[in-house]
Amino acid sequence: MNNSENGIIEILPVGRVSSPIDTVNLKADSSGLKQDELNQITRKHRKQIRETISQLVINEEYQELLDGIEAFSHVLVLYWPHLLDPERRKLKKVHPMGRKEFPLTGIFATRSPARPNPVLVSVVQVIERKENVLVVKGLEAVDGSPVIDIKPHTSSYDTLDKPKVPAWMEQIQREMDEE
Amino acid sequence: MNNSENGIIEILPVGRVSSPIDTVNLKADSSGLKQDELNQITRKHRKQIRETISQLVINEEYQELLDGIEAFSHVLVLYWPHLLDPERRKLKKVHPMGRKEFPLTGIFATRSPARPNPVLVSVVQVIERKENVLVVKGLEAVDGSPVIDIKPHTSSYDTLDKPKVPAWMEQIQREMDEE
Repeated sequence: MNNSENGIIEILPVGRVSSPIDTVNLKADSSGLKQDELNQITRKHRKQIRETISQLVINEEYQELLDGIEAFSHVLVLYWPHLLDPERRKLKKVHPMGRKEFPLTGIFATRSPARPNPVLVSVVQVIERKENVLVVKGLEAVDGSPVIDIKPHTSSYDTLDKPKVPAWMEQIQREMDEE
Repeated sequence: MNNSENGIIEILPVGRVSSPIDTVNLKADSSGLKQDELNQITRKHRKQIRETISQLVINEEYQELLDGIEAFSHVLVLYWPHLLDPERRKLKKVHPMGRKEFPLTGIFATRSPARPNPVLVSVVQVIERKENVLVVKGLEAVDGSPVIDIKPHTSSYDTLDKPKVPAWMEQIQREMDEE
């Protein structure tokens, strides 16, 4: 068992992300900008991420575990945001996207990376698998992020027709879809 | 940082699952049955899980982090299958669903709970939130499973129109949808 008396679970990463993304995003630098300017920056940033090609470099002992993964178009990547300031894991509530007009919301009701156990889950496109390297498109992880797990994305497990989300999330999605 | 020299990440669970499901599923007991009998059992099992109501009992220090979660219809639950035999985490390849007619497939290309870091991800329906308890529907986790994280399910992050999956996964999905 991995559960010692105090309940701690130990995770040994199975690999690392190799990515052109080398800094956490720019939100902190953007004070003073108007909301539509911020939206434009965020849209541009998200568009760049969607086009970003990353390598998941898996430790050689786990290479075989990738066999058959090219048959899926998309996988879930579970990774750890190693550059996140540990202090930020103590946050309890935030205004989503740092926007004061959105309600102060508990961390479990947001996708903020700052959370007690920041195991981040991202759906990415499979481009190619070469030995112990899985090349994917659309991963926001910073270069060097530890990879915890890779799972196939399947509609029966992961997809819903139309999940209900709060108004603030609808607004973010709408703004991010605008071009 | 949570990364010590050997790269171990420490996770402190934020709560526990309280569920009527108290044993890992029955697959091991089913040798000798024909495939269509097995499919029938699996379909019944999955149907039961879809209807299962569980409580995510969050430690009181994290109670506030649930604020706002009722506005989402679905959340991702990240949990740890604490009854999984640690030896099974060393598996490299399996026949999906234990079925010999499916190709021997690397663990990262399956949703098997037996994997190096068994952080399981499940999309479940939000029924109700009462203080530090989130009531959900459709969670396969066994009673007592440590909860690692809760995140809102949103189509922009988690949903794809039609992910491509291998023939074996299509077959499983087709068989599981039959009534």
